[in-house]
Amino acid sequence: MHEDQLLPAEPGIRSIARELYRHARDLPLISPHGHVDPAIIADDRPFPDPARLIVVPDHYVTRMLASQGIAPHELGVPTVDGSPTQTDGRTIWRLLAANWHLFRGTPSRLWTERVLADVFDVTVPLRVDTADLVYDLLSERLADPAFRPRALFERFNLEVLATTESPLSDLTAHAKLEADGWGGPGGRVITTFRPDDVVDFEWPGWAGRIEQLGVTSFPQFLERLRERRQAFIAAGATSSDHGHPTAAALALSPAHATALFNRALTGKADSRDAERFRAHMLVEFARMSVDDGLVMQLHPGAVRNHNTALFARHGRDVGGDIPSPTEYVRSLKPLLDAFGTDPRFRIVLYTLDETAFTRELAPLAGGYPAVFLGAPWWFLDSPEGLRRFRETVTETAGFANTAGFVDDTRAFCSIPVRHDVARRVDAGFLARLVAEHRLPLDEAAETIADLAYHLPKRVYARTVLAQGAR
Amino acid sequence: MHEDQLLPAEPGIRSIARELYRHARDLPLISPHGHVDPAIIADDRPFPDPARLIVVPDHYVTRMLASQGIAPHELGVPTVDGSPTQTDGRTIWRLLAANWHLFRGTPSRLWTERVLADVFDVTVPLRVDTADLVYDLLSERLADPAFRPRALFERFNLEVLATTESPLSDLTAHAKLEADGWGGPGGRVITTFRPDDVVDFEWPGWAGRIEQLGVTSFPQFLERLRERRQAFIAAGATSSDHGHPTAAALALSPAHATALFNRALTGKADSRDAERFRAHMLVEFARMSVDDGLVMQLHPGAVRNHNTALFARHGRDVGGDIPSPTEYVRSLKPLLDAFGTDPRFRIVLYTLDETAFTRELAPLAGGYPAVFLGAPWWFLDSPEGLRRFRETVTETAGFANTAGFVDDTRAFCSIPVRHDVARRVDAGFLARLVAEHRLPLDEAAETIADLAYHLPKRVYARTVLAQGAR
Amino acid sequence: MHEDQLLPAEPGIRSIARELYRHARDLPLISPHGHVDPAIIADDRPFPDPARLIVVPDHYVTRMLASQGIAPHELGVPTVDGSPTQTDGRTIWRLLAANWHLFRGTPSRLWTERVLADVFDVTVPLRVDTADLVYDLLSERLADPAFRPRALFERFNLEVLATTESPLSDLTAHAKLEADGWGGPGGRVITTFRPDDVVDFEWPGWAGRIEQLGVTSFPQFLERLRERRQAFIAAGATSSDHGHPTAAALALSPAHATALFNRALTGKADSRDAERFRAHMLVEFARMSVDDGLVMQLHPGAVRNHNTALFARHGRDVGGDIPSPTEYVRSLKPLLDAFGTDPRFRIVLYTLDETAFTRELAPLAGGYPAVFLGAPWWFLDSPEGLRRFRETVTETAGFANTAGFVDDTRAFCSIPVRHDVARRVDAGFLARLVAEHRLPLDEAAETIADLAYHLPKRVYARTVLAQGAR
Repeated sequence: MHEDQLLPAEPGIRSIARELYRHARDLPLISPHGHVDPAIIADDRPFPDPARLIVVPDHYVTRMLASQGIAPHELGVPTVDGSPTQTDGRTIWRLLAANWHLFRGTPSRLWTERVLADVFDVTVPLRVDTADLVYDLLSERLADPAFRPRALFERFNLEVLATTESPLSDLTAHAKLEADGWGGPGGRVITTFRPDDVVDFEWPGWAGRIEQLGVTSFPQFLERLRERRQAFIAAGATSSDHGHPTAAALALSPAHATALFNRALTGKADSRDAERFRAHMLVEFARMSVDDGLVMQLHPGAVRNHNTALFARHGRDVGGDIPSPTEYVRSLKPLLDAFGTDPRFRIVLYTLDETAFTRELAPLAGGYPAVFLGAPWWFLDSPEGLRRFRETVTETAGFANTAGFVDDTRAFCSIPVRHDVARRVDAGFLARLVAEHRLPLDEAAETIADLAYHLPKRVYARTVLAQGAR
Repeated sequence: MHEDQLLPAEPGIRSIARELYRHARDLPLISPHGHVDPAIIADDRPFPDPARLIVVPDHYVTRMLASQGIAPHELGVPTVDGSPTQTDGRTIWRLLAANWHLFRGTPSRLWTERVLADVFDVTVPLRVDTADLVYDLLSERLADPAFRPRALFERFNLEVLATTESPLSDLTAHAKLEADGWGGPGGRVITTFRPDDVVDFEWPGWAGRIEQLGVTSFPQFLERLRERRQAFIAAGATSSDHGHPTAAALALSPAHATALFNRALTGKADSRDAERFRAHMLVEFARMSVDDGLVMQLHPGAVRNHNTALFARHGRDVGGDIPSPTEYVRSLKPLLDAFGTDPRFRIVLYTLDETAFTRELAPLAGGYPAVFLGAPWWFLDSPEGLRRFRETVTETAGFANTAGFVDDTRAFCSIPVRHDVARRVDAGFLARLVAEHRLPLDEAAETIADLAYHLPKRVYARTVLAQGAR
Repeated sequence: MHEDQLLPAEPGIRSIARELYRHARDLPLISPHGHVDPAIIADDRPFPDPARLIVVPDHYVTRMLASQGIAPHELGVPTVDGSPTQTDGRTIWRLLAANWHLFRGTPSRLWTERVLADVFDVTVPLRVDTADLVYDLLSERLADPAFRPRALFERFNLEVLATTESPLSDLTAHAKLEADGWGGPGGRVITTFRPDDVVDFEWPGWAGRIEQLGVTSFPQFLERLRERRQAFIAAGATSSDHGHPTAAALALSPAHATALFNRALTGKADSRDAERFRAHMLVEFARMSVDDGLVMQLHPGAVRNHNTALFARHGRDVGGDIPSPTEYVRSLKPLLDAFGTDPRFRIVLYTLDETAFTRELAPLAGGYPAVFLGAPWWFLDSPEGLRRFRETVTETAGFANTAGFVDDTRAFCSIPVRHDVARRVDAGFLARLVAEHRLPLDEAAETIADLAYHLPKRVYARTVLAQGAR
């Protein structure tokens, strides 16, 4: 990796960007939102083979290969319909190498190369004729105790990593982490409360999960969720996370909400009921946040399981989701009317629809005390996406209404490079402001440290704590 | 301020941009749309204290501070509910200084710094420890007759400034201006006809204002508006301005429009009636424009008073409005079917939804003789917003279908810097075209003078005058 | 024309871009989608006068002039209402020259200048005082046999040119071309199956065209279309093309589709019926593609004949169409559910709504094997539009899921410059990736050759052929 990677090419801007980047480069990583399995850190077992580390679980990688006709089962993606899937890591790896050109210009290429080079010290370029060599070098590293999860965690300079769990989780891994001095409130590995699977009637098996929660009525449901949030807080949680199809929020009457819940329990709820219930629950969760201080994160706008054939064979979260247009201003009004100026409340808004940045999100974040803008997410968490985020958001929302970078990843080893990419892109953006005499260098240097470290640390902290500091 | 502020950093482009900027820098300012109180110029009284000049009335400033938990009443924003508000200018100013870092990367920062430096010759950087010094220096200037409104008007090289008034206004300030040789047709301070408060059923107090207009039927209403337009024209108006939630236009039958009007008079109109009436009135106003030559300006797409708590305490226009997605192509069709190719008609379209630039607005302006594109507005009247406007609009609409910069501001002292920012950004855009061998330097120089001066002068002139020149 | 035209100005990037451009510059042109009249090549007659070559048939040019009040009939645009139109080429040409400044910053300016210079060796700048000289020089060239269509075709290094015909066409020109060794399967001039005029109930004269097709029932209609596709394939077609108002696809029951068809035959279908029928036919055509291997092209999102006055006087396709917001993710789901992962099927998606690039189109193309992204189209087929396409699409879809440039033009002589513009813009984009150390130079060089030549050749080939190569 060239030391100037991702910095703007114009020599004047690049030299300022280098200087600014130096102010952020070595700051600890704050990872307040992501999908790493906490058992990885809790158990600290060696990572599996290179294919299972880098290809199989990464839907960015498998969907790109699928888009050119390489079926997910050829890449070892587990099936839910019982059909066979490739099990030989080396075969999968060779398929990746043979198609490596498909990733030109994508963040997956950049992340993977730097995981190989920076984390595993494998600098042989990936090609058809080097596939086996890279596989062998990588396998060797993975067998070395210095490359186990906890050792890497230390090396990554990771200050805190938040995982994401369902209210149904018993948080076993987090309990083990706490016992080992790694977890619990203020710990290095914390959880996040993500209740989608018990809120969304349309998620298959909903009624079974409600039974598992041990509730039979809507008031019990709310009460049980409040209890689970306390358990999550005890496991270190500072935020909740909500992945909804839209940003709709509704403050229904208790009677109306109860009726929806009961309709769903009897299997009679339709798609509109499901949407209204999710919307209402967003307001309920905001109310809970006011009481317990969990920062609310909203990830709206994905059409889940769009690829029907893929879903049928491989299930959820394997690359079959597609973004769709997302409205925030009217949708969120009921929630913001209730809590938008409440100092006990904080909500971080994400989007897959970048048209909302200048039009809706920056104005909302730059107007409501409770609203912060989450980092570009999923299809936008890339060099160009990160750049456009700053270009479209800053003039209305400034920097202080953005929440800092989140890596949002399942791929533990890619965490450092993802943060590094964001730091480099922010350095480039700030350097342009400096070069165009729009911001003095010293303030730009302070800003990049805010973006990289201080802002996420502050924004994703529980608001009851944060209140004192206001 | 560095002399190269906002010019692209690449030395080749910058040197061309400097050259182009020199062709626009000293041209007189044309301000065909804004919200300066005409009494400021009519009365020519000294400006109030620094806080009341720069913080209190500027919702760009107060909303950013509010977004980080500093309540508007702490900043002296007047209340409508009788609750107390800060009255000490110095206290407000210190609050601004203490939070000045929030404005990094925003146009407010840039405008304010240059108002201080360019207009008031105060070059001490604003910081917590310089707050009082800046306040005192500024107060001293404000007491000096050389810094009164009319003296500044001269210094600003302002050729014409249009204010914006309701049909209910008796235009007193404009009468005084005319008596002093400053106003009237062809004068330096002119008015603009903005009838929203008598057109919008949903604006509280509508019926009372209709009574104030002295009309009791829809035909009388139309007739009265035509009369008021004549009074406005006598006070120099060359355009009307319409701020609607959407760009909807409808050519209803007289009977239908009358029924809506009557329903509203009896307090029975609902939200849909209000939208239909506004849409119909847009076509009525276009018809009036064909007769009296006022250029029509349309500012659609703001969700007004989104922040309910802010509206309840502080009323309208204090930073609680948020943009929303805005459709033009189908919405405006009835109006364009009627008048889109009529040489007596001209409409300037603005947007808060920049996705419309390539998709809808540039194609409309590049296809209909009557349509021009207004400058980026409100959340988009910033360096990056102005740059994206040119990048997205020019290839389809060229330069001649854009209407030139409007400052759209209440802040009289910020007018020069706002125009200067637009001139610098346009210089940068044109310089890139030159550097990429897409436009010869001499044509770029002619173009920047058009954008800065000749175009707005031509586009915002009454069309009856313009017709002759075609 | 400067040799660095359109290459980024920063010297480091420009030098890389030059190098990359050299890898694409001389590759043959593949033109898999456009609207050149095949009779031009079949008959190989001299082009008409300069105005009829460059102004009259080009709605990019006439609409820009119309937008500034120069009526299409003054420019010789044919009328359908019998009203007179300018017939003197020199008069039209002078009008163009007098208004040439309107085209600053537009692709029409760039294309026209390079057609004059590169194709006809006329390098005198177009101005009022040179209008006649340029006209005369150009007229002289047009009389020269070396400037006849087939000679230019050779000079252009055009490997294949696809024209676009209705199923009602008897493909005479293509038959002549085949007889002359220019046409037929694998030939240099091929056709494209475009059935909109027999699919769209709302296109005036639909019932008459159905009669012309010789069918009276929906099953016959489908059968007849399949037969026509075979005739098109025999005339070289490798793809079909579909220009719909939306991207809606519907898999209706045969009974339902039949009912719609019958309703239309009796003149009773309404606008909603028409939309449902078009949507259903999209799925029917996809099914036909699976069988006969024609690649499907979808061009959705134009509001046709928006300018009512223009349509009344001059008819279709003279600059009165305007884009509108276009949704793909939900709209196309029925089609993608049926065929999105079928290796026999391929669909190329275009858009006039560039907000769909990151949000919908890149995720669809980067997820479904059947989906490819067409080049920026119409209002977006410009330097800035092409640049934004790569910037917004590449990180999610890579390069291999884009289909390569299409010129989509009626203006035969502008084909080389249009392709050259795309190659230069791609060179600039790739050069930035190289300069920012995101892609090695050798891979960038391979990529630009793919984009310019190999990709369109592969993507627009019939899938039955392509299948073998997978």
